[in-house]
Amino acid sequence: MFHLGLVPGRAWGALLCQLLRPPRTVCVRAVGCHGQVAEAVLTSQLKPHQEKPNFIIKVPKGTRDLSPQQMVVREKILDKIISCFKRHGAKGLDTPAFELKEMLTEKYEENLRLMYDLKDQGGELLSLRYDLTVPFARYLAMNKLKKMKRYQVGKVWRRESPTIAQGRYREFCQCDFDIAGQYDPMIPDAECLKIMCEILSGLQLGDFLIKVNDRRIVDGMYAVCGVPESKFRAICASMDKLDKMSWKDVRHEMVVKKGLAPEVADRIGDYVQCHGGISLVEQMFQDPRLSQSKLAVEGLADLKLLFEYLTLFGIAEKISFDLSLARGLDYYTGVIFEAVLLQLPAQAGDEPLNVGSVAAGGRYDELVSQFDPKGHTVPCVGLSIGVERIFYIVEQKMKTSGEKVRTTETQVFVATAQKNFLQERLKLIAQLWDAGIKAEMLYKNNPKLLTQLHYCENMGIPLVIIIGEQEQNEGVIKLRSVASREEVTVKRENLITEIQKRLSEC
Amino acid sequence: MFHLGLVPGRAWGALLCQLLRPPRTVCVRAVGCHGQVAEAVLTSQLKPHQEKPNFIIKVPKGTRDLSPQQMVVREKILDKIISCFKRHGAKGLDTPAFELKEMLTEKYEENLRLMYDLKDQGGELLSLRYDLTVPFARYLAMNKLKKMKRYQVGKVWRRESPTIAQGRYREFCQCDFDIAGQYDPMIPDAECLKIMCEILSGLQLGDFLIKVNDRRIVDGMYAVCGVPESKFRAICASMDKLDKMSWKDVRHEMVVKKGLAPEVADRIGDYVQCHGGISLVEQMFQDPRLSQSKLAVEGLADLKLLFEYLTLFGIAEKISFDLSLARGLDYYTGVIFEAVLLQLPAQAGDEPLNVGSVAAGGRYDELVSQFDPKGHTVPCVGLSIGVERIFYIVEQKMKTSGEKVRTTETQVFVATAQKNFLQERLKLIAQLWDAGIKAEMLYKNNPKLLTQLHYCENMGIPLVIIIGEQEQNEGVIKLRSVASREEVTVKRENLITEIQKRLSEC
Repeated sequence: MFHLGLVPGRAWGALLCQLLRPPRTVCVRAVGCHGQVAEAVLTSQLKPHQEKPNFIIKVPKGTRDLSPQQMVVREKILDKIISCFKRHGAKGLDTPAFELKEMLTEKYEENLRLMYDLKDQGGELLSLRYDLTVPFARYLAMNKLKKMKRYQVGKVWRRESPTIAQGRYREFCQCDFDIAGQYDPMIPDAECLKIMCEILSGLQLGDFLIKVNDRRIVDGMYAVCGVPESKFRAICASMDKLDKMSWKDVRHEMVVKKGLAPEVADRIGDYVQCHGGISLVEQMFQDPRLSQSKLAVEGLADLKLLFEYLTLFGIAEKISFDLSLARGLDYYTGVIFEAVLLQLPAQAGDEPLNVGSVAAGGRYDELVSQFDPKGHTVPCVGLSIGVERIFYIVEQKMKTSGEKVRTTETQVFVATAQKNFLQERLKLIAQLWDAGIKAEMLYKNNPKLLTQLHYCENMGIPLVIIIGEQEQNEGVIKLRSVASREEVTVKRENLITEIQKRLSEC
Repeated sequence: MFHLGLVPGRAWGALLCQLLRPPRTVCVRAVGCHGQVAEAVLTSQLKPHQEKPNFIIKVPKGTRDLSPQQMVVREKILDKIISCFKRHGAKGLDTPAFELKEMLTEKYEENLRLMYDLKDQGGELLSLRYDLTVPFARYLAMNKLKKMKRYQVGKVWRRESPTIAQGRYREFCQCDFDIAGQYDPMIPDAECLKIMCEILSGLQLGDFLIKVNDRRIVDGMYAVCGVPESKFRAICASMDKLDKMSWKDVRHEMVVKKGLAPEVADRIGDYVQCHGGISLVEQMFQDPRLSQSKLAVEGLADLKLLFEYLTLFGIAEKISFDLSLARGLDYYTGVIFEAVLLQLPAQAGDEPLNVGSVAAGGRYDELVSQFDPKGHTVPCVGLSIGVERIFYIVEQKMKTSGEKVRTTETQVFVATAQKNFLQERLKLIAQLWDAGIKAEMLYKNNPKLLTQLHYCENMGIPLVIIIGEQEQNEGVIKLRSVASREEVTVKRENLITEIQKRLSEC
């Protein structure tokens, strides 16, 4: 695919390196169009030290690297989430980053264009996974599993317009918990909401609310308002935008783009204003229009039971029955839910953080059967934590508070004040590593003591071992606390136990 | 891209579901060719309950799901590896699963055809990452970092012929540790080998050996043997197969496929038989032919220093200077190394485990400069642990020993012997969760006690709380040990402390 004359790329580079001293890099510019145009430019030969870079080093649109600082934040958050999933008895699962395209089609419908497809390189048609739910359903069907409580943490990919400022990316991490199996109604559903509450409380993101609705109530509402059944999903997709758009704009889209009669839209408009607790559920049972829909009444009955369980779990006040909640994904069949942050964690006067929903989920009773050749049903309910947005909030909080994070966990630094002590330092540090102690030293033969102590201060390393001629002769080392600058002399043979004692006291 | 007549997929499914009771799934077969042919077949309408599945549910070639059992093994292994990386002061990093294709070309040369390319969907040309080394070099150049000690754990993708029986996949996890920066020679290189030893010893995979060579010795050897410089990389690629093929077959490939003169191949043949410790390094300094190559002598001098440091680290006996070691990747410039298992961990009489190398790495001083517009060099050395192969070995060991793993961590099960105790169970379990205790219950209104106790035995849950009418009236619960079947009565208000006491004693 790529030709640089007759000489293969690297050999050419090697040849050029020999011709020129100091060696210069061969820069290749790949111009993306239908084919690929490769152009080899020897920077130093043409315009040494003046040429602009021939390509811009960057990551793909909507993706990002996570720096060590970000990784520390991410690890803490993921740990808390995974602990919660394990507290609820979930098993781990991992699935490939890509699936056969035919496994994913039919599952997302309108979002199919947002999928990353791979090039057909002589064989299978593959797409990167769009969420962790469809692969889970595929796994259940493929292994003929009738029940499973699993969690999965992994990246998913969607070609949406990235709004990076708000923590929305094309590559992002999801943390999913799902309960598959035929059980008595609303018990697993209630546990999903309990998990959401535990995680959001545990992460201390400020006050939150979980909106709850039911796809059967949504569909029943459409039916009694007079939406033609063929428009259900399209209208649902419009309604899903209510967290970002006003009802006025959504109504406009329904009427103008989706061809809904204005009076039908207005009837919907009356319902989507409604939100409240268990009393609103009771009220809707009495609603002259909605009570005509068998589907809606089924959904309301389940919600009533759900609220009963949520009360026993002590989380009912966190839950709001909200008739405007639609959820974008097609596979939901029953209860749906979405958590939003209420209080902005930023200080007064700061820019408000607009992060949208931070967790969502629902019941999808028909998805597994779409993979099963005999159409066997495995009812499922689950939730997904939008960790990227949570990372963003926590990072912003840390920026505001000026909190610093250590990016390494090093406990002890091995230093010397004298020349020619590399050998001793290497022996000492190996001893520490072998004892399980986290230790570092500078990769220099003869480093300056000040440089070494500065390194410890910058990196937040609490302890320093100092070795020199005198110490070596006496069979001791100096152990120094970086914070207090206190030094004690320790016998070489007691070194490990002394360090372990100090570290356990921290 | 996908059309099913005029009705969108899901709406069509919904329509059909209404026509037919019981509802049947719409199966879509996507026939892969240049375009996509979609064929909708309504199974139940054509041949109800007899039709074979219209598509086979499977994962893409060379990929796999990791089951909960496998996830437990994997988590334990990754924990040990990451602990070791942190013990050596490494920072975490994450990079996107795909990179701009132009970032990856030039870096792998012959392996370029093994890359998974994404479809150009109007914009960037992207490829899934092939390793974690090139993204790390790209990260350093992009952020103008002159030094960094980082670890990264993540999936990489290579379209090689999968030999799944041996733990080789097209999607696999790598655990990388790298030291970037200009340092005194061989100190970071020695640490990389120390890390490999710590990890392989810690995982108790049996005896192992780390082969070491230097790219400059390889190239010097080629030069003095009379290999034309244009053939260096091609001959290197052949030599890299020596762990899977005999010298006879590799020689044949060199002569017949790569057009090397037979006498030149034979000269190489003499060298590739050589392996040994520091004494072989000394011996090669005296080799009349090899000592003529300035490059090779540079490499030998570094290896001599390396062996000195390895002796101080106490690992010299694990390291073998091996002139047959070539390493397939193009970017190496200095020391290269590869760890192989010596003793097969399986029991006598079992099938031998052929897993090839389990860890490898080397020095790549010119890779970062390939990304830098000014060609600034950042010398690097690093290692990669082939965890899939390690997973495979550990799984085989567990199969042989019949060892069982718990796939959940649940500590307490909430049970009842009586009907109508769902509410009490829900209240109790929420109390446990809120106290951080890992707890489960059955999602049934009125489960049988025996079913509940069986569940605990199957899942290895150590403690059961039993609640019934009598207990409720007396304000107590029964706490049962699943293993001993002993039961004690505990006051409701002491429940949490009593459980925590019991769990801390385990």
